Amino acid sequence: MDGERKRVLLRVAYDGTAYHGWQKQQNGVTIQETLEETLTGLLREKITVTGASRTDAGVHALCNIAVFDTGARIPAEKICYAVNQRLPEDIRVTESREVRSDFDLKKCHAHKTYEYKIINAAFPDPTKRLYSYFTYFPCDVERMNMAARHLIGEHDFKSFCTAGAQVETTVRQVTDIRVMRKGKEITIAVSGNGFLYNMVRIIAGTLLEVGYGRMEPEHVREILESRDRRNAGPTAPARGLCLKQLEIEE
Amino acid sequence: MDGERKRVLLRVAYDGTAYHGWQKQQNGVTIQETLEETLTGLLREKITVTGASRTDAGVHALCNIAVFDTGARIPAEKICYAVNQRLPEDIRVTESREVRSDFDLKKCHAHKTYEYKIINAAFPDPTKRLYSYFTYFPCDVERMNMAARHLIGEHDFKSFCTAGAQVETTVRQVTDIRVMRKGKEITIAVSGNGFLYNMVRIIAGTLLEVGYGRMEPEHVREILESRDRRNAGPTAPARGLCLKQLEIEE
Repeated sequence: MDGERKRVLLRVAYDGTAYHGWQKQQNGVTIQETLEETLTGLLREKITVTGASRTDAGVHALCNIAVFDTGARIPAEKICYAVNQRLPEDIRVTESREVRSDFDLKKCHAHKTYEYKIINAAFPDPTKRLYSYFTYFPCDVERMNMAARHLIGEHDFKSFCTAGAQVETTVRQVTDIRVMRKGKEITIAVSGNGFLYNMVRIIAGTLLEVGYGRMEPEHVREILESRDRRNAGPTAPARGLCLKQLEIEE
Repeated sequence: MDGERKRVLLRVAYDGTAYHGWQKQQNGVTIQETLEETLTGLLREKITVTGASRTDAGVHALCNIAVFDTGARIPAEKICYAVNQRLPEDIRVTESREVRSDFDLKKCHAHKTYEYKIINAAFPDPTKRLYSYFTYFPCDVERMNMAARHLIGEHDFKSFCTAGAQVETTVRQVTDIRVMRKGKEITIAVSGNGFLYNMVRIIAGTLLEVGYGRMEPEHVREILESRDRRNAGPTAPARGLCLKQLEIEE
């Protein structure tokens, strides 16, 4: 409370299983709320954080970003160690540092990579169940990659956005999508500067339809052009999704 | 209840986080008990299973073996699908098949591989916390491998057994130990035909002391020769341990 006020950036990793997503809400415990309460206790002043990615309920992150202001004397670089002593085990701050006082997450150019993990085998692996979606239908990763290519670039992703979401535009830039298999594990890595509500999960659900052979890879282009959510595949379950990388230009 | 009695072998994978280990006990829910209750409900007769590895509380397994007798008509190969419909999500039967009526797990020659996972980084990864032990002290994997070599072969592992365990002999054969690093993850893989109570966790705890530089690799030979548990390192936490392979000669 006694020092000069400063703006602090945190890198936050979490297991989203037990949380109702990032953003504060009435119906359940969220990452934002847990962070704010813990920082408020540590710094002894009311702390409000702004997040870079509002991950959904059950979605995980290795590198989300939170920014807040504080007048506490503790050096910004030490906050991560102190706050980790108080946070529950499923949330960890992996970096804390001071940023310019006019730093604004909303104005930063961001580059994000989400990974969607699928266990494709005869039986699920119980030790991976919280961080993947299990399917025993054989998936053809080559077909999934062929379909994914149609989504790379700047497009109107209205078909890949949960209907009813309020946004100014549904145009987004996807810089890369790769589908990789390693043994029983399939990873769909999607990179871009911003994503619509449920967009990566609907992309995963649609690519799975292609992988199963229920949809042709070329059909993904038609889905995109239709601008109609009903034409895309189902929203794949939250547990398979993780925010893996988040770079910002300060 | 109506068919001829048969002996059935199950392969069982589980996340041990929520269980008090394999073996039935008074104080908490175990894997054995959960399997027996689920099979009893499915097959409509009282089922008792025998397990190949009595994993400790919190330890995971991808391929433990359970054997039981039943008079139920359901083909042995179909039991895995039916039982998975009723089991909690953290236990999965990955194979079920009939074995000879005189098949006895206790008389089988077994070959087991346990893996102990360590996250060695500045900060823990919350999405791996349930399946690894976290340490930020730098670990030298080469030193750990040098120390591990002294443990390979037939030895009296009394120093690597929790004191008070009642066994006929503390001599065991370790066929291989390897310590591998991949990025932030260190894996200690230990293979052999049988292990003493807490043996793999004490080996992991001792190799970590060597990796930290607190103990010389050669000292492991002296620990072995001393036949005194107090000379070995601490018992590494259960969550890092997983039974990865279990081969039996029928």
